[in-house]
Amino acid sequence: MSRRTDPSAVPDLVERARAGQARAVARLVSLVEDESPLLRPVMAALAPHTGRAHVVGLTGAPGVGKSTSTNALIGALRAAGRSVGVLAVDPSSPFSGGALLGDRIRMQEHAADDAVFIRSMASRGHLGGLSFTTPQAVRVLDAAGFDVVLVETVGVGQSEVEVAGLADTTMVLLAPGMGDGIQAAKAGILEVGDLYVVNKADRDGADRLRRDLRAGLALTERAADAWQPPILATVAQTGQGVDEVVEGLEQHRTWLQDTGQLAVRRARRARAEVEAVAVAALRARWDLGDHSALDALAAAVAAGEQDPYAAADALLGE
Amino acid sequence: MSRRTDPSAVPDLVERARAGQARAVARLVSLVEDESPLLRPVMAALAPHTGRAHVVGLTGAPGVGKSTSTNALIGALRAAGRSVGVLAVDPSSPFSGGALLGDRIRMQEHAADDAVFIRSMASRGHLGGLSFTTPQAVRVLDAAGFDVVLVETVGVGQSEVEVAGLADTTMVLLAPGMGDGIQAAKAGILEVGDLYVVNKADRDGADRLRRDLRAGLALTERAADAWQPPILATVAQTGQGVDEVVEGLEQHRTWLQDTGQLAVRRARRARAEVEAVAVAALRARWDLGDHSALDALAAAVAAGEQDPYAAADALLGE
Repeated sequence: MSRRTDPSAVPDLVERARAGQARAVARLVSLVEDESPLLRPVMAALAPHTGRAHVVGLTGAPGVGKSTSTNALIGALRAAGRSVGVLAVDPSSPFSGGALLGDRIRMQEHAADDAVFIRSMASRGHLGGLSFTTPQAVRVLDAAGFDVVLVETVGVGQSEVEVAGLADTTMVLLAPGMGDGIQAAKAGILEVGDLYVVNKADRDGADRLRRDLRAGLALTERAADAWQPPILATVAQTGQGVDEVVEGLEQHRTWLQDTGQLAVRRARRARAEVEAVAVAALRARWDLGDHSALDALAAAVAAGEQDPYAAADALLGE
Repeated sequence: MSRRTDPSAVPDLVERARAGQARAVARLVSLVEDESPLLRPVMAALAPHTGRAHVVGLTGAPGVGKSTSTNALIGALRAAGRSVGVLAVDPSSPFSGGALLGDRIRMQEHAADDAVFIRSMASRGHLGGLSFTTPQAVRVLDAAGFDVVLVETVGVGQSEVEVAGLADTTMVLLAPGMGDGIQAAKAGILEVGDLYVVNKADRDGADRLRRDLRAGLALTERAADAWQPPILATVAQTGQGVDEVVEGLEQHRTWLQDTGQLAVRRARRARAEVEAVAVAALRARWDLGDHSALDALAAAVAAGEQDPYAAADALLGE
């Protein structure tokens, strides 16, 4: 699946990515997906150029209109003069490359625009899954100079929490008439959103959904000086309400900066990232070799001869 | 949230759990949820008594009827003379305790039955999430002597892959008329199921869903001697078809044993478990201390002074 990249090509690739060349950016994201050993020099070269982008997470259950909303947001952000990098992370496809069709549809509209980059990423999850690949891909787009990096994920369960972990601003998208799915997801989403957007607001049940959300958020404990997440309404298909979303994102970004929360969130994100890279390095080491110590330990645990704690101690050389 | 357990109480607790006392089993599962340091002696004591249970994963999108199906399966398994331990893992509630209401409803029916144990688990995910807590809770129920350990999860995205990783037999539940959700989930599920069950089979679209599934499975690459996953149909509400599911589970278990695949799967599971425990131990170590080395590294990465690879090297002492 992956083209080989010559290590000596890295400096040039990084330079071209930093200049915003889409093909070079795409190549670096592929290196991230492939968990390439070349990431090490790439990330070292990119580090000084990171931290500028506003990283926005967009999450929602299947069917709420994530792709349409992303598309509308790109348009509104471009109209406001911002360049936009989009990562559509598809955790439902751990084995094979994700939502390519959706990509192609969206890319047609923005294909001629150099200030827009859109990329699907499957979270293959060999070494670290979403928590390993996504922040590094964000790092690539950030260093490439995009003003806004939008990370779109299917939000059901754990994944929206992970998105909240890596974004400056997390946008939770909902839509009326989703039934059980929304119910199941609700418990988790009330704690992670900085912005709630009820899409398909022209449909029956939109008002009720907004009321329910407001009631749910009111019950969620928040400090008096904490950010109060607004609940916005859109019809992404027609663009209705999308400018207000862009404004809401901007306000949250300003709040983050004014309160010092931006630094707090980014330190937390960097912490998780370093941990994920360290864990991936250990996993890679454990998986290496024909006479893997881990295999022998696993066999002993499977046979009931050893418990997983003693085996983990042995693995860590303790 | 957690009652303290006195370390000296561990041997007695383990003894009573092994004798199948529900309260002792529940207490041990709580220790798993709390990622208690007492798990170490607990797991050492349980290890020799594990490996007997048939571990069955049941996964499906919200709304397909997982709770009703689990309930019907419990009934059918009990009628066949099996004891059943159920773990309902709710990855949508990483922050607060999961589907308690569902639990209570189900427990009423089986409350008087000592051979049935049902427990909801939130995957809080502090150190390792689902991949850390679930296999250890399975270990507790296995050692407690349950013939079948049923792990029920909301299957959207990554989680069904994780369930497939920890179960001997993975059952994927679907239902007609789920729209986008199923579409989104489909790519992932075709590779993980040992048994497919179309629930709500009395509804419109059930036949079509079975045809689509059959077509999808036919396109999935499988070795000639591999297990061919059956597609069954149930109406869990009335119990229709549930005995055939029990039979299907039994056939798969026999196949696993006859082909040696049971040992292969279990070694793989033990491998993942040892890795997860080792990673959790490292995370706990990194998180300890007021002057955390990780915090300093994270700050340097957030400031763009260091890249995450160099920071991870430093964290690992290299």
